[in-house]
Amino acid sequence: MRITIIGSGNVATHLAAAFKNAGHRIVQVYSRNMQHAALLAYHVKAEPLDDLIQIDPETDIFVIAVKDDAIGIMAEQLEPHQKLMVHTSGATDLYALLAFADNVGVFYPLQTFSKTREVNFRNVPICIEAADKNIAKELRELAQTVSNSVYDIDSKQRRILHLAAVFANNFPNYLYTMAQQILTQQGLDIDLIRPLILETAEKVQTGLPAAMQTGPAIRHDQNTMDNHLQLLQDNPDLQQLYTLLSQGIIKMDIDPHGDK
Amino acid sequence: MRITIIGSGNVATHLAAAFKNAGHRIVQVYSRNMQHAALLAYHVKAEPLDDLIQIDPETDIFVIAVKDDAIGIMAEQLEPHQKLMVHTSGATDLYALLAFADNVGVFYPLQTFSKTREVNFRNVPICIEAADKNIAKELRELAQTVSNSVYDIDSKQRRILHLAAVFANNFPNYLYTMAQQILTQQGLDIDLIRPLILETAEKVQTGLPAAMQTGPAIRHDQNTMDNHLQLLQDNPDLQQLYTLLSQGIIKMDIDPHGDK
Repeated sequence: MRITIIGSGNVATHLAAAFKNAGHRIVQVYSRNMQHAALLAYHVKAEPLDDLIQIDPETDIFVIAVKDDAIGIMAEQLEPHQKLMVHTSGATDLYALLAFADNVGVFYPLQTFSKTREVNFRNVPICIEAADKNIAKELRELAQTVSNSVYDIDSKQRRILHLAAVFANNFPNYLYTMAQQILTQQGLDIDLIRPLILETAEKVQTGLPAAMQTGPAIRHDQNTMDNHLQLLQDNPDLQQLYTLLSQGIIKMDIDPHGDK
Repeated sequence: MRITIIGSGNVATHLAAAFKNAGHRIVQVYSRNMQHAALLAYHVKAEPLDDLIQIDPETDIFVIAVKDDAIGIMAEQLEPHQKLMVHTSGATDLYALLAFADNVGVFYPLQTFSKTREVNFRNVPICIEAADKNIAKELRELAQTVSNSVYDIDSKQRRILHLAAVFANNFPNYLYTMAQQILTQQGLDIDLIRPLILETAEKVQTGLPAAMQTGPAIRHDQNTMDNHLQLLQDNPDLQQLYTLLSQGIIKMDIDPHGDK
């Protein structure tokens, strides 16, 4: 397909590379910032632009990978070309595009992307939604050229998925940060817990997380929990977080596996 | 070395296998439960026992890998043999053994173990503490036969480390469970977020977690956070957790990388 990328951030960068690697042609890359557009365009052999006036109408699809609040603005300006348009946002309904055109869909890659980190796109789940069955088929086929995991997910489900992703990614990463902070304050190295962080995530790649729960809370080990709260005495925010998370784990009320 | 394993749980199982693979001889495996002792003893070609009366004094070290509250009981019964004794607990001070003998130390492998999951022990950090320098040297050498990551960690540091491990392992796993629960209630599959969970952990293997923070909270995207709280309206516990974690992320006050 001939693909036009609107945006030059993390999602735009990884999607453009995945499309290019799958044999598609990236026609143009748009960004408000010409340097950003040029950098990504260079990597995927496309033409950069920073003004939608210069858009090449000879394309099959506009892939809008910009901040959520700019999706509608882009859609409004691209609508006159009457091409297929998709956005890539987990937090935005299909309606954000349907308000401007009929030939629209969603192409949401459910992964956390950094520009400097390679991702094996074939493992990235791609969530498809479309205004009609023909568009859905077209998007599904496009998604299958870059990923082995393609799902039909409507806007309501995508909202749930985005919420779950916050619990699976944003919040654990914050807890890693707190763990590091606890170590650093005592002169200890984050390397001590990096293997633990990785193994915790690897364990749930096959099993269910509830079955993997270990630690003082699931063992109802009040003595250890009290000791931990004592160690956090100078940090009431972390004490509150420790208590709330531990109470949640205690409420899980499953057979503890223990961590011995 | 000739090694006697006291315990047959997850830590005992993985430690015994690692010692055996490194060429040490496992003399005996003790468990209160003879079947458990026999199963592990079979795998490491050792003699099983369920009564410490039968302990073979021809050993170099007793590795006590039992529940925290049983460490002292074991130490008291093993003390008459006047052999080197170590415990393997993150949450227990060296004093738990020093109260009974002088020739003691700690051999704490900082990882989450499940009996049915293989672990590459060479990547597991082992935290050593000892009653004197000679014991420390001996334990460090033993640790280096099974792991590439050996650290000297005193009891105070180990308490901090154990607390950090709760934030790095127990709490993230609980959040995975909540993510799965959110998905399951809407008929969505946990497979959708498994790659995200893994990538989140892999990202911090080289980088610092604070630099990897993404999501609505770090972007101060109140609209998305309000939508998420609305989706959690039937679950006040999760609402409270969502709010507390988001407030923590907002307080991080670093440059948001965004998750686009």
